[in-house]
Amino acid sequence: MRVFNFSGSVYPIHPRAKNIEGYKVFKSLKDISEPIDLLISCISAEQVPALIKESMEHDIPYLHLFTGKLSETGSTNAKMLEEQILQLAKSAHIRLLGPNGMGIHYAASGLSFRPDLPDFQGDIGLLSQSGNNAVELLTRGTARGLKFGKVISYGNGSDISAAELLDYLGSDNQTKIIAIYMEGLAAGREFFEALKVAAAKKPVVIHKGGRTASGASAAASHTAALAGTNTIWESAIHQGGGYVTKTRDETLDLLIALSLLSSIKGNRAAVVGGGGGRAVQAADCCEENHIKLPDLPTAIHKIIDERAPTLTNWIKNPVDQSILAGSGFSSHSLLSLMLKSATYDFGIANVGEEWFLGRPDAKNRLKHACTRLIETIKDCTLPVAVIYGTTETLQNDQRILLDEMRELLINENLAVFPTIERATSTIGQLLKTSKLSK
Amino acid sequence: MRVFNFSGSVYPIHPRAKNIEGYKVFKSLKDISEPIDLLISCISAEQVPALIKESMEHDIPYLHLFTGKLSETGSTNAKMLEEQILQLAKSAHIRLLGPNGMGIHYAASGLSFRPDLPDFQGDIGLLSQSGNNAVELLTRGTARGLKFGKVISYGNGSDISAAELLDYLGSDNQTKIIAIYMEGLAAGREFFEALKVAAAKKPVVIHKGGRTASGASAAASHTAALAGTNTIWESAIHQGGGYVTKTRDETLDLLIALSLLSSIKGNRAAVVGGGGGRAVQAADCCEENHIKLPDLPTAIHKIIDERAPTLTNWIKNPVDQSILAGSGFSSHSLLSLMLKSATYDFGIANVGEEWFLGRPDAKNRLKHACTRLIETIKDCTLPVAVIYGTTETLQNDQRILLDEMRELLINENLAVFPTIERATSTIGQLLKTSKLSK
Repeated sequence: MRVFNFSGSVYPIHPRAKNIEGYKVFKSLKDISEPIDLLISCISAEQVPALIKESMEHDIPYLHLFTGKLSETGSTNAKMLEEQILQLAKSAHIRLLGPNGMGIHYAASGLSFRPDLPDFQGDIGLLSQSGNNAVELLTRGTARGLKFGKVISYGNGSDISAAELLDYLGSDNQTKIIAIYMEGLAAGREFFEALKVAAAKKPVVIHKGGRTASGASAAASHTAALAGTNTIWESAIHQGGGYVTKTRDETLDLLIALSLLSSIKGNRAAVVGGGGGRAVQAADCCEENHIKLPDLPTAIHKIIDERAPTLTNWIKNPVDQSILAGSGFSSHSLLSLMLKSATYDFGIANVGEEWFLGRPDAKNRLKHACTRLIETIKDCTLPVAVIYGTTETLQNDQRILLDEMRELLINENLAVFPTIERATSTIGQLLKTSKLSK
Repeated sequence: MRVFNFSGSVYPIHPRAKNIEGYKVFKSLKDISEPIDLLISCISAEQVPALIKESMEHDIPYLHLFTGKLSETGSTNAKMLEEQILQLAKSAHIRLLGPNGMGIHYAASGLSFRPDLPDFQGDIGLLSQSGNNAVELLTRGTARGLKFGKVISYGNGSDISAAELLDYLGSDNQTKIIAIYMEGLAAGREFFEALKVAAAKKPVVIHKGGRTASGASAAASHTAALAGTNTIWESAIHQGGGYVTKTRDETLDLLIALSLLSSIKGNRAAVVGGGGGRAVQAADCCEENHIKLPDLPTAIHKIIDERAPTLTNWIKNPVDQSILAGSGFSSHSLLSLMLKSATYDFGIANVGEEWFLGRPDAKNRLKHACTRLIETIKDCTLPVAVIYGTTETLQNDQRILLDEMRELLINENLAVFPTIERATSTIGQLLKTSKLSK
């Protein structure tokens, strides 16, 4: 909270400490005379019933139980204790977030649960039963250019439920896209009702963990979730108007597409870049994801015929950049011509950066190519997905250099994907669900 | 060749240059009196027929045509020229590699086509119709710990064919695993005969580009390949005993598994690491790839019961590492117990490195955890796959730090995968094709 400049008062409670991170420490809740809006509990589960009684006396409306080791342990006693806590809170009119959840990260409010989370305010809302998954999505998504806003790790969700949280984010004006990682539900009907309402207003992406029998068993041990049958879940999410994802990276890819490529109006792609092998794979990936690759329009063929007649019958969509060498056409000028014709709905810049790496002037060449690509895309109105390597699989200096380049692209709010497969399967899902493809 | 310490003589030929990179330059082939084993042609296609006549006079047995713009251009004249070149070479008893290929990278021989390719000798042979794909596989594969040996980018493959090259690598004692990127074949029967013979001796992984109509059309423009129907290809590769992959990363993943996890004898996995969300996803991924997750054996449950009774009924396979906190069990000690029981065939260390990143002592903690993991794996006989993040999606210092850690793991010859999905689908394919799963 210090890192995020929380502007309200913070009262740490601890039996022995005098001072924590510069905050004055109180021995117990009773020693605090000021009104309290939210109490965060990090004490052990057995102490929570007493804490709820003290909270009631203090008129505290909200209690976040970071406290875990309750029903997720599988022990009967712990399950009974969770039920007891829930009933005590109900009768005290205290709403519970958790137990077994990291709570709220909302940078604009100064509330957070880790000092290294993004400190700016975005418009992607995130609900996650798993705290670690919330951190993974936030950390890795932010590095890819996603802007998260209100993030809630709700753990077992015993009182404040996924349905209530989804209702909230659905009607929240600061939230434009909603992402959810969940493992199970106590009240399915409420959730899918909330989904219908929210998905009618904004995209809702749901990664459902516990799709299999093994996964469901793991989910029970993690968040005490009743995972349910996957086919029922999938069809219920689709009927509710949500997007289904199966992995963290699929979720991030789809959020990139929803954030940056939502203006794609049809399935006709202009693909430019890389060598011939990359062009072949791009073509395979497009067709396998129902993305069409219309040939270059006559007007562009005419321009090519005038300036580089040997290329006239050779150049196809996807454009193999390597055959342009010495022709007077750069990949950027051709991409620009294609993006400005009426033949295509979107572009894919299939950058093959390995090509430059062997050269002594690699850095300048890469930087120049990146800058030109950014200019080209900014100069056109059609959305463009950029393929910029999985640089984790390059060595040392090369990796650092390419990471720098990718950050240039990301900082210009471009939709960057590590591989053509991931870009095309994401755009395919976008087109399918939004029923835009022709 | 200079970078790779080629020990033979190199004779650059150029009409005007006097000296190239310290090598004395010759005006034409005629000016070289010494015998020549291999001629590499970088001149334009129209000049190649005259070059073949000169080569014949010089008794040169092998000609590598880096030269392109032949049948892949789609032009009738260029196709006729390629046919003419082929016939001239045949009558001159000169064997052709290419045209339109990068040629040979074989570090031990000092032959290479790029100065930045790996300079050590490994035992993975690689055939690629695409030069760029060869570079991508080499560069990215090496960074992941793969050791490539003989690499041949054969382009259009007009004379020396994929079948002949596969025959060679199949019977080559230095080659233990073969990877192929191909787009099409003129002579299918010969290739699949060669595949049967090679695959009976060593694993052969084939990434077939041009699976779709669009891909086949792009393949024709790239290497003049007749791509053929995908279903026929897939079943022919399977019948020949080869592994089919669809992407570069699938190919690299499978090569990692074949290189480092080939001792997996069955489908029972011990999975340890990460938080609860990761455990749930690991369980889903395992089941979806027919990998079994047997419960901890009674002997281990007994040890847990003695030392941490509250965990006895809570701990499951996959082990959610976060519940071990304060129990006296580390994830490494539990993984070790599991790997030493007879209940499992292999392990998956599902490292969730985000957990440490928020802490000020992140580097020490990560390094300690990495070192302990390496010790644990080295101390057991079962093969272990390590999941160590897609660090490209982390920011700056975090990324550099984690890349360093991953390199520690890779340098110990561990099989590192970026996600649990990719590890389990790769191991699933290994198990399926080697018919080991029970």
